[in-house]
Amino acid sequence: MIKIGIVGGTGYTGVELLRILAVHPEVEVKCITSRSEAGMSVADMYPNLRGHFDLAFSEPDPVVLSQCDLVFFATPHGVAMRMMPELMNAGVRVVDLSADFRIKDLDVWSRWYGMPHESSEWAAKAVYGLPEVARDEIRQAQLVANPGCYPTAVQLGFLPLLEQGLVDPARLIADAKSGASGAGRQGNIGMLHGEVGESFKAYGASGHRHLPEIRQGLSQAAGKSVGVTFVPHLVPMIRGIEATLYAELSDPADFDRLQALYEERYRNEPFVDVMPFGSHPETRSVRGANQCRMALHRQEQSNIVIVSSVIDNLVKGAAGQAVQNMNIMFGLDETLGLNAPALLP
Amino acid sequence: MIKIGIVGGTGYTGVELLRILAVHPEVEVKCITSRSEAGMSVADMYPNLRGHFDLAFSEPDPVVLSQCDLVFFATPHGVAMRMMPELMNAGVRVVDLSADFRIKDLDVWSRWYGMPHESSEWAAKAVYGLPEVARDEIRQAQLVANPGCYPTAVQLGFLPLLEQGLVDPARLIADAKSGASGAGRQGNIGMLHGEVGESFKAYGASGHRHLPEIRQGLSQAAGKSVGVTFVPHLVPMIRGIEATLYAELSDPADFDRLQALYEERYRNEPFVDVMPFGSHPETRSVRGANQCRMALHRQEQSNIVIVSSVIDNLVKGAAGQAVQNMNIMFGLDETLGLNAPALLP
Amino acid sequence: MIKIGIVGGTGYTGVELLRILAVHPEVEVKCITSRSEAGMSVADMYPNLRGHFDLAFSEPDPVVLSQCDLVFFATPHGVAMRMMPELMNAGVRVVDLSADFRIKDLDVWSRWYGMPHESSEWAAKAVYGLPEVARDEIRQAQLVANPGCYPTAVQLGFLPLLEQGLVDPARLIADAKSGASGAGRQGNIGMLHGEVGESFKAYGASGHRHLPEIRQGLSQAAGKSVGVTFVPHLVPMIRGIEATLYAELSDPADFDRLQALYEERYRNEPFVDVMPFGSHPETRSVRGANQCRMALHRQEQSNIVIVSSVIDNLVKGAAGQAVQNMNIMFGLDETLGLNAPALLP
Amino acid sequence: MIKIGIVGGTGYTGVELLRILAVHPEVEVKCITSRSEAGMSVADMYPNLRGHFDLAFSEPDPVVLSQCDLVFFATPHGVAMRMMPELMNAGVRVVDLSADFRIKDLDVWSRWYGMPHESSEWAAKAVYGLPEVARDEIRQAQLVANPGCYPTAVQLGFLPLLEQGLVDPARLIADAKSGASGAGRQGNIGMLHGEVGESFKAYGASGHRHLPEIRQGLSQAAGKSVGVTFVPHLVPMIRGIEATLYAELSDPADFDRLQALYEERYRNEPFVDVMPFGSHPETRSVRGANQCRMALHRQEQSNIVIVSSVIDNLVKGAAGQAVQNMNIMFGLDETLGLNAPALLP
Repeated sequence: MIKIGIVGGTGYTGVELLRILAVHPEVEVKCITSRSEAGMSVADMYPNLRGHFDLAFSEPDPVVLSQCDLVFFATPHGVAMRMMPELMNAGVRVVDLSADFRIKDLDVWSRWYGMPHESSEWAAKAVYGLPEVARDEIRQAQLVANPGCYPTAVQLGFLPLLEQGLVDPARLIADAKSGASGAGRQGNIGMLHGEVGESFKAYGASGHRHLPEIRQGLSQAAGKSVGVTFVPHLVPMIRGIEATLYAELSDPADFDRLQALYEERYRNEPFVDVMPFGSHPETRSVRGANQCRMALHRQEQSNIVIVSSVIDNLVKGAAGQAVQNMNIMFGLDETLGLNAPALLP
Repeated sequence: MIKIGIVGGTGYTGVELLRILAVHPEVEVKCITSRSEAGMSVADMYPNLRGHFDLAFSEPDPVVLSQCDLVFFATPHGVAMRMMPELMNAGVRVVDLSADFRIKDLDVWSRWYGMPHESSEWAAKAVYGLPEVARDEIRQAQLVANPGCYPTAVQLGFLPLLEQGLVDPARLIADAKSGASGAGRQGNIGMLHGEVGESFKAYGASGHRHLPEIRQGLSQAAGKSVGVTFVPHLVPMIRGIEATLYAELSDPADFDRLQALYEERYRNEPFVDVMPFGSHPETRSVRGANQCRMALHRQEQSNIVIVSSVIDNLVKGAAGQAVQNMNIMFGLDETLGLNAPALLP
Repeated sequence: MIKIGIVGGTGYTGVELLRILAVHPEVEVKCITSRSEAGMSVADMYPNLRGHFDLAFSEPDPVVLSQCDLVFFATPHGVAMRMMPELMNAGVRVVDLSADFRIKDLDVWSRWYGMPHESSEWAAKAVYGLPEVARDEIRQAQLVANPGCYPTAVQLGFLPLLEQGLVDPARLIADAKSGASGAGRQGNIGMLHGEVGESFKAYGASGHRHLPEIRQGLSQAAGKSVGVTFVPHLVPMIRGIEATLYAELSDPADFDRLQALYEERYRNEPFVDVMPFGSHPETRSVRGANQCRMALHRQEQSNIVIVSSVIDNLVKGAAGQAVQNMNIMFGLDETLGLNAPALLP
Repeated sequence: MIKIGIVGGTGYTGVELLRILAVHPEVEVKCITSRSEAGMSVADMYPNLRGHFDLAFSEPDPVVLSQCDLVFFATPHGVAMRMMPELMNAGVRVVDLSADFRIKDLDVWSRWYGMPHESSEWAAKAVYGLPEVARDEIRQAQLVANPGCYPTAVQLGFLPLLEQGLVDPARLIADAKSGASGAGRQGNIGMLHGEVGESFKAYGASGHRHLPEIRQGLSQAAGKSVGVTFVPHLVPMIRGIEATLYAELSDPADFDRLQALYEERYRNEPFVDVMPFGSHPETRSVRGANQCRMALHRQEQSNIVIVSSVIDNLVKGAAGQAVQNMNIMFGLDETLGLNAPALLP
């Protein structure tokens, strides 16, 4: 059994990790920390876990965490980069669900996250944990930076086009929409039901923290710097991201082979599903499941490729992908604990 | 492996059966029937099942169904009572998720369901499948009538009071609320998102089909005929039932032992969870899980016991309870395939 | 033009007052106060008011407020009772939307609101502003205590039964359900969309602040002390309250005249609508409208009267009723500014 | 008083017309037709209208309709083009809310709507009723083709850019999202609450009927044929459209004057509101109101103009714009009956 610690477990990614790990056959959760809720039973905060965990939240204790095989950080940005080095030195492996190690250019990171980076050494060693791109590096990694939710949906949708150099890399548009759980579980007036319900809006349209992460991943896939416009939107629902992606095909004749290309690219990926050409993936078809589902579209007389890509932001966009990374790191079947179908309806 | 057939699989209980059975280690779904969708792949209708089932809907064929060990009927009322006898005679066991065999008094049944009953023989033999009441009979049964969704939540909440004779059985009130999936998946204008969303209402307040089923179960528990008022309501959500139950305690001094009584009554029940006195169960705490969660309340200077009881109408209120019954019928661990925590948030 | 001041305008009742007053032909809003948002334009906080008001929030200033003809308090409990006496002494009339003056027994008030009452003099003079009960007193009042949202829906539904002495006053049950805007606009984790959406629960089932207010009003109608059980629930929607009321008819023969009784009781009430017997009022049928809509039900062989009563908690349950009271106080047509139909769908 | 007829009044645009006309001081609704519901009281179908209209649905009768000054068609596509000529010949003026007269190229129309056009004469005379573009023609028109919902939000957002020739007209992208009421009120399984709730998806991504209408309007504004990609999405809410628009600025220096350009373009438009640069319009800020609200964005180092534009699809996207057109046609104040603020929250 893999001994697991979770740092910062009171948020939505924390409870989602516990939900997934509750039925994972090869792990044992040894501790889950929260400074603010230390002493509170996990099941008192999250009654869906009653009967599944006896655990209480505890103060983060490096000694206890060091005895774990793997520690997940589900903390606000800036915490992991401070706490993690001590664990790394003790040989613990870490999957960081925060943004601390996602961006390689630390100047860019500092600008978008509003603080200096405090662990450039580990930032250099961290592996960006998108298994569909970096499975082998993840296997060896001591520190995995779990991708952001939007970047997961957007990168997986664009990858085949950019890897094959089929589209104009300077003209990528990603119009993305997310449920409210993406904003976390904090006392934020703007995220009240009375504010979010029955309404729809763009936000961060002039610049969102996931933009540099998306740009980094797409540039790597394209082998050159890309130009991407990314606008996120808030949907009155809890879980789910849909990204509608637009790219300009250099040679319209390539439309004929796009579907085959996508199917081939993801043929062996257990968690990416390419639907038939012209399908419309629904976010509910991945609710609670570690799955990215996508489909391609073309409008008449147009050379714009349209890709619609959906994930559950808390699963393939956070906790599920983190467990997928854990499975890879520990040589387990990559799908272990991640096999249940989505909850539909 | 238990060979499973599903008759009438295109509705919400059908897809929910498949979702649960997809991860059940001891079953194999051999066929799923639908007259209207024969030939269509299950995964085309329910994309959450892509990769989980290769099955297509087929015309119901008694020969094929007769080769199953167990057949679930997820059909509209009136279908099972006609189709099932042939299967029973072939030795197949049946769990009927429709209302055909829930009510013992066939005159009452006919009046509420608007048709004569066509299988009085099997109606007499059918076991009402509420495991918390009839586990032993279910184990032996060839035909199990799976309880209705409201009746499950209401009966489990009232049972300890009635079994112990602590309340006035003539003055029971059950104010129940359900998400929209309870109405099934049919082209009903009243269930459009534009009609259901952002609104709340009572329905069936002058009399609902689940009233006689509730009355039958509560009368059996009380050992005498009860008087119960039952009003269902429609909640703008998809899954979940909450029932707030009111009963008048004969001796207010009994308030002191109610919590212990409930905990004792359900101590060994894997799927009933009694929360601490004064808690408020949320439907989301059981979303997707085969669980009934409840709590007790008292208001100052009052001798009214208040019980709040929640289930997922598609799981403990339908498909999950059906699989629980199957597990019992086949001598499996009762919780097999039903262990995952609820999806929260 | 009536000069209006609003104290505490940043919450949902504040913006709702402005929405209604924006089209009221006889008022002019002179000031709206908020300590926390002083200086901010009203339209910046509530963009639906862009083009309707040029006003900015200001620090509450007794001099400015004293120049108003009427001041609405849309403040947290405890504020009006401290600020209001100075205005009263200056001859200003006040409609208090908080709970400060709703309960006549100040010991009861203190116990439920957790603070001593600081204005017993005005508490004695305040008129409880339910126009259907106290229209004449409201007309003369200097201080009107605007009823709570649940108490409005519950009282209007029970009134005819109690006034006529037709039911057992010791056995009243009010099972009420509210949208999330009832909890106000504060950074409360429990009211996040991620917590409220797609879930349903009871809350305050052991005792809620509206219980003593309901008990006071019903006791007055009955002419004797009543026993009432009141359980509120949270519905995943923004606006709307439905209350399902249960009462035991002393003489079942009275069922035959109940519908006529209700219609007669409310025949001249512009904002109470009695639907045909057996109807099911929807909260959306009153969304945004100053209306209470209700219907009666009976189940077979039962002597329980069932009343379903709906309001918009922010309108007839708060700001709309406050404007109705204002219209009465100033001798205007009671429906002025309150005539638009509900927003459906 | 203007005598009004409504043909096809049972859908969401029909009830919305009635909601708006109920408080319009210069109209009298003489008849509202529905073949399927003839004889039913309007208020029985739409209880929000109880007390506002005494009207019942009637069979469409050309004699009665011919006595109206204005007839609104709120019918499925294909009905108005058959019924309307007789009324036109009788001198009645018509606002058609269906798509029958929106597209000038009848070959295009036939291809997208799947039927031959039966009134080419009137198609040529019809005025496309976007007041911000064609106010003078509307004033004179006998037949106004009321614009589609998406086309209204998209055209108003793009117009200033195209009229001034500032962007590449071959590379326009409109990513649009709509609430479920846009699909109308029909027994469509895909629009059930259980299907739409808590999910998000693109639809019609390979081609939607509003695409040719959008292309026609934008081409007219640009003075040349434009290339536009339009992808609609379904949002789990009832009302509201948000369109996020992307266009490539020919000269990035023009960014400095865009905000002023938009404000100037819409300075005298009562129903278009340009928010400050970098704002995020919410659909709820226009719920129930005849308003289009928009804002501009730029991302760092980008020459893509981003416009976010919101409307209520049933108001500025349908019934409200129809009444605005009526006001213009009859020389009334354009804002009459359309002045109430949006319902927020």
